[in-house]
Amino acid sequence: MSTMSHDTLFPLTTAKRLNNLGQAGRGEGVIARSIKLLSNRLEPHLQQTVQIPGQGEAGSYAHNRHKENARLIEGTGLLYQLTQNPVYAEFAGQWLLGYAKQYLHMDFHPQKNTNPPGRLFHQILNEQIWLLFASLGYGYIKETLPGEQRETIEQGLFYPMLHLFTETYRHDFDRIHNHGLWAVAAVGISALTVGEEKYVDLAVDGQAGDRESGGFLAQISRLFSPSGYYVEGPYYHRFAIHPLCLFAEALHLHRPELDIYNYKDRVIHKTIQALLATAYPNGDFPALNDASRTMNIQDEGVVTAVALGYSHYGHSDTLTAVAQRQGRIWLHPCAQTLAQQVDTLKEQQPIHWPSIELNEGPDGNRGAQGYLRLQNARGDLSQVTMNYGQHGMDHGHFDTLGITLFNRDQEVLREYGFGRWVNVESKFGGRYLPQNHSWARQTVAHNCVVVDQLCQNNAEADRADQVHGQPHFFIGQGNAQAMSAFANHHFRDIGMQRTALLISLPELDFPVLIDLYRLSSRQAHLYDYVLHYAGQIMQTNIDYSYDKEQRSLLGSNNGYQHLFQVAKGDVTNGLKLTWLQNKSFYTWLSASTAAELIFAQTGANDPEFNLRTENCLLLRKNAGDTLFASAFETHGHFDEASEYCAGATGALERIEVLGHTAQGSVVRLTGKDIHMTIMVSNAPGVTPKTQNIVEVENDTYHWQGFFAITDNNVAGV
Amino acid sequence: MSTMSHDTLFPLTTAKRLNNLGQAGRGEGVIARSIKLLSNRLEPHLQQTVQIPGQGEAGSYAHNRHKENARLIEGTGLLYQLTQNPVYAEFAGQWLLGYAKQYLHMDFHPQKNTNPPGRLFHQILNEQIWLLFASLGYGYIKETLPGEQRETIEQGLFYPMLHLFTETYRHDFDRIHNHGLWAVAAVGISALTVGEEKYVDLAVDGQAGDRESGGFLAQISRLFSPSGYYVEGPYYHRFAIHPLCLFAEALHLHRPELDIYNYKDRVIHKTIQALLATAYPNGDFPALNDASRTMNIQDEGVVTAVALGYSHYGHSDTLTAVAQRQGRIWLHPCAQTLAQQVDTLKEQQPIHWPSIELNEGPDGNRGAQGYLRLQNARGDLSQVTMNYGQHGMDHGHFDTLGITLFNRDQEVLREYGFGRWVNVESKFGGRYLPQNHSWARQTVAHNCVVVDQLCQNNAEADRADQVHGQPHFFIGQGNAQAMSAFANHHFRDIGMQRTALLISLPELDFPVLIDLYRLSSRQAHLYDYVLHYAGQIMQTNIDYSYDKEQRSLLGSNNGYQHLFQVAKGDVTNGLKLTWLQNKSFYTWLSASTAAELIFAQTGANDPEFNLRTENCLLLRKNAGDTLFASAFETHGHFDEASEYCAGATGALERIEVLGHTAQGSVVRLTGKDIHMTIMVSNAPGVTPKTQNIVEVENDTYHWQGFFAITDNNVAGV
Repeated sequence: MSTMSHDTLFPLTTAKRLNNLGQAGRGEGVIARSIKLLSNRLEPHLQQTVQIPGQGEAGSYAHNRHKENARLIEGTGLLYQLTQNPVYAEFAGQWLLGYAKQYLHMDFHPQKNTNPPGRLFHQILNEQIWLLFASLGYGYIKETLPGEQRETIEQGLFYPMLHLFTETYRHDFDRIHNHGLWAVAAVGISALTVGEEKYVDLAVDGQAGDRESGGFLAQISRLFSPSGYYVEGPYYHRFAIHPLCLFAEALHLHRPELDIYNYKDRVIHKTIQALLATAYPNGDFPALNDASRTMNIQDEGVVTAVALGYSHYGHSDTLTAVAQRQGRIWLHPCAQTLAQQVDTLKEQQPIHWPSIELNEGPDGNRGAQGYLRLQNARGDLSQVTMNYGQHGMDHGHFDTLGITLFNRDQEVLREYGFGRWVNVESKFGGRYLPQNHSWARQTVAHNCVVVDQLCQNNAEADRADQVHGQPHFFIGQGNAQAMSAFANHHFRDIGMQRTALLISLPELDFPVLIDLYRLSSRQAHLYDYVLHYAGQIMQTNIDYSYDKEQRSLLGSNNGYQHLFQVAKGDVTNGLKLTWLQNKSFYTWLSASTAAELIFAQTGANDPEFNLRTENCLLLRKNAGDTLFASAFETHGHFDEASEYCAGATGALERIEVLGHTAQGSVVRLTGKDIHMTIMVSNAPGVTPKTQNIVEVENDTYHWQGFFAITDNNVAGV
Repeated sequence: MSTMSHDTLFPLTTAKRLNNLGQAGRGEGVIARSIKLLSNRLEPHLQQTVQIPGQGEAGSYAHNRHKENARLIEGTGLLYQLTQNPVYAEFAGQWLLGYAKQYLHMDFHPQKNTNPPGRLFHQILNEQIWLLFASLGYGYIKETLPGEQRETIEQGLFYPMLHLFTETYRHDFDRIHNHGLWAVAAVGISALTVGEEKYVDLAVDGQAGDRESGGFLAQISRLFSPSGYYVEGPYYHRFAIHPLCLFAEALHLHRPELDIYNYKDRVIHKTIQALLATAYPNGDFPALNDASRTMNIQDEGVVTAVALGYSHYGHSDTLTAVAQRQGRIWLHPCAQTLAQQVDTLKEQQPIHWPSIELNEGPDGNRGAQGYLRLQNARGDLSQVTMNYGQHGMDHGHFDTLGITLFNRDQEVLREYGFGRWVNVESKFGGRYLPQNHSWARQTVAHNCVVVDQLCQNNAEADRADQVHGQPHFFIGQGNAQAMSAFANHHFRDIGMQRTALLISLPELDFPVLIDLYRLSSRQAHLYDYVLHYAGQIMQTNIDYSYDKEQRSLLGSNNGYQHLFQVAKGDVTNGLKLTWLQNKSFYTWLSASTAAELIFAQTGANDPEFNLRTENCLLLRKNAGDTLFASAFETHGHFDEASEYCAGATGALERIEVLGHTAQGSVVRLTGKDIHMTIMVSNAPGVTPKTQNIVEVENDTYHWQGFFAITDNNVAGV
């Protein structure tokens, strides 16, 4: 019963090509390792009898078992094609038959959230994912089954599911959304396995057949901005890109006339690039919007996207480095060239994407996400991320102008991520927790400025969806990079501009981050410049009072109800504060005077223990127009196990605001052998040729273009 | 100027043997890797001119520089012998000359702690370590220097140091202490390099020459108990073992008549074994007494001890696995056989020491340290550590009967470790912090029972030094292991017994820990059964009130002043509480009724931010005689990055106390398919033949020996 007598078409490839891939995987190298990973995963199950449980919560045995079963069917089917070992085909056939005999006898799951329920899972999203993988597996072994068994599987399982997704829940099928991509990919790919072209058409063109209101072509045209960025952020992007890549590859094979890889100005290439370009140098994705802090390039969707991108859009050293870090490869014939490249590499190559600004919105004019990256002499990459784009739809956080800093293999100015324990049954069935709204999405939970202890756009998603940040300038090359943006519609009557500069100085081991957060208002407001850090406070130049015997609430809502005050001190003449995070010291210098520093910790109003204990700092100032000017120095080295410590004190001493007007901001940074003046344009519409002038008291500062830095403290250079 | 024309004796070996080692390191394998590590470490310094700073705090540039300079001198000297490259010899010679010209012109460091100051360092301990390594380096290159330079180095540097340690601070030289080992090794080894036998005698025999009141032989005879355990615990043990090994190897070569490796019933072998046997399966040492949480088998002292132990006391698979995990080897000819063994291994071998009880005190009758270890079917090792020995001298914690639990690559029931940021200049010069006494050493900071919110022995070291735990029984083999001990002199008028059982059950994925902590007193007392954990609370069966809007102090002294109360609830009918630590779930079952559970967190009264934020649980009960009976189940798997979760709820349901008397304790454990009765003897003097009878209400339980377990809930088996 060999499939080798002719070349069989599967949804994603052909039998002969998989046979070739299997041959290529017999030696050493990343293909062999990936096949080994797959066979190791399947091995413990091969002796099991068919196990089809009932229904359960996310994280429950039943939920996990169904998920795993689909992947066993797909994995054994694939491995059958790679190895021609009939044991795998028999396994997949038996389990498919088991499901086919039971499926229609199972009740619908009681509905628990906004997604309609399935028969196997609590939401049809999971059922669609199940169908996609189970039908891939079925495709690989279909020829090994007698006709009546095929009939049982197709009529008892696949057609009912196709009906469920396209008829029963037809209202949901065309939704332009990450779930929508899974829906069309599942329907399209399963339709290819049963040879039902009408469902393929539906999946490609949408119910209206217009390729605009629904279907795969509409999804990929409308989900991403021209830069390829996905509005919900990388956590949901990597989830959406998986079905996108699978169905794209299927259409490449079965509907070559669509020329899918060139579709819509190569949107698939752009969106793969955009996803990868958000990642930190260690491969983790910044937790923008609702997102876990640990999602990374190991995710299967990213593994698929890397192979597919390399195959269809050509070589890139960084892409190869990403594949190398992933340590495995998509088991698809298109991955073979990439695998060969990876096998030539010995030491892990750095994943160094260039600095990039990713525009947002259908026309690319609804703000952007900025990523600055600078490498130091020892090869360490610093990355600064700034959000000046759109609100992230249903998963958005109220953190426009929020930044993160990453270096030395860790996030330094940190995102909290979502309030959710994914798939942990005992934590609300793994769903989003109330604290996701009350803490994780609030402005104060981010590295932002909070006005009057409120939340941007009053924490109303509808309102936030209507506004966005406004890019000012972005310079992503050289040893002094910078990005600047406005957000004038996020707090009532408040103008906000944030400029982040990442600068390499020969005197410092790591690039320094200069952060200029400017607020303008005719009335005085209470501004909280908030920083989220991890680790231990080492020293500070201010006197503070520590709440030794009690902790009290910092506020009553907008996230403040989750913060306890730990200590508080007046900042009268600039701030210097050093903390230790793992092996690295970080010193924060602020120019503020007449301000107050609050040390705070999460934990209040969390009776279910749903939040992690985290620390933050709030620099509080009562003002109308003000400029929070900060410098962040990375320095020293601490290794507790070997008891080595050096450089606990940084080289920077002071940052001062020399002036800030609607035209520009001028600050001075001083330290050991360092005297710098930094001038930044605040005028919307600035160009590289604009002449900027800022007059402050007796000094006049002038420079051309977006920003200027002088390496001494004489003004007017 | 070759040293190869004849075989030159160095303190630790000969030129020909080092030449052989260098040859062996030219291929691949662990010797080559170790040489590469050394040359990589030296490489950045070879072009530097001699840099001899003044004096500074621990962690300061000056302090680090001096430390590093000694290691550069030693390292380049050694590498010269391994490679015959004269560049290395020149470097060592130049730096030694630099020091020799300056040393006597430097003032003594201002004294900061109880140790006398040196000229280079704030305490002579560091100066002795400096001398040891610098003189080793000198030995390797001595023959390359003209006579006048040798004269300068010996007269300007080594003799003054020898004089300092043996005359100026002669009162300190014979102290039996870990510092004392460094002192004698430094004096002995440097005396060998300058050929001054009288100092070698002094270092071996002590000032009185009696080999009992001081000197190396007295140190190794008196510092360790018959089991080889070092009273201060593994953190200081690994520090003491380094000079011990170096000087032992020197005496093996230069004073063979001492037969040092058989001295005192092979005390050197025993103490190496004892140190290694304390380590967790991941190579970290449990933080007993003052200790960091991260000290591990990578420490140079341990690397030296492993090679030396293997060479002089023979092969052991576990020793080889330790060396393999270390990833490098002591660059000494004696390490060559071990290196060959390591090079034959491919996958990392498990470090599985047998369960062991290490007795304490000069005659082995002052209590013991117990280590139970059980491996599960998947190879994961669980380890339970219990301290029922002596107070740890100046570095002792008040935690007799304290336990820790380790499995799945992490400490679960946790030690806080010391209150100290070693070598962090900005944290009190890296010295012990006030919180070491006020928190880290207190009973409440350990997994212990605290009586009346006090501290064992009133936190007085003198008093604690006079008492010790009393071993009851220790069964370290089979699928049901147990250890039991008494501590009746640690709280006034309170008898205490703790029994820890580690039991493998076919129904559970990991061994279950049963913890029976029995207290006896004629009066009622407030007992706090304390557990230190890390991670997130997942669920519990009790109702509790969460202090939503404030946190208040748990007490005013004995460590309670550092604890905030987070939540509190009544335990009326047994407790079940699950937390998640990284990838693993842990469920604590307690049999307690009429008790109160307090959720607490450190952070109070810590105005310098010297403590880490950690969580603990206090099960509080007012009683005279009582038995805290607990079971700890390890279960499930959570992987946030891949969003996989299974087994969040454990299989165990309930633990109950059926009875406890002076004769014995009887508890019942139930869960899914689990019905166990556990009977433990409480009678001092119990033997394997003792017939135990416990009568409770209408039931009689009898068993023979230390403990018994039945696999159903019928008594009297």
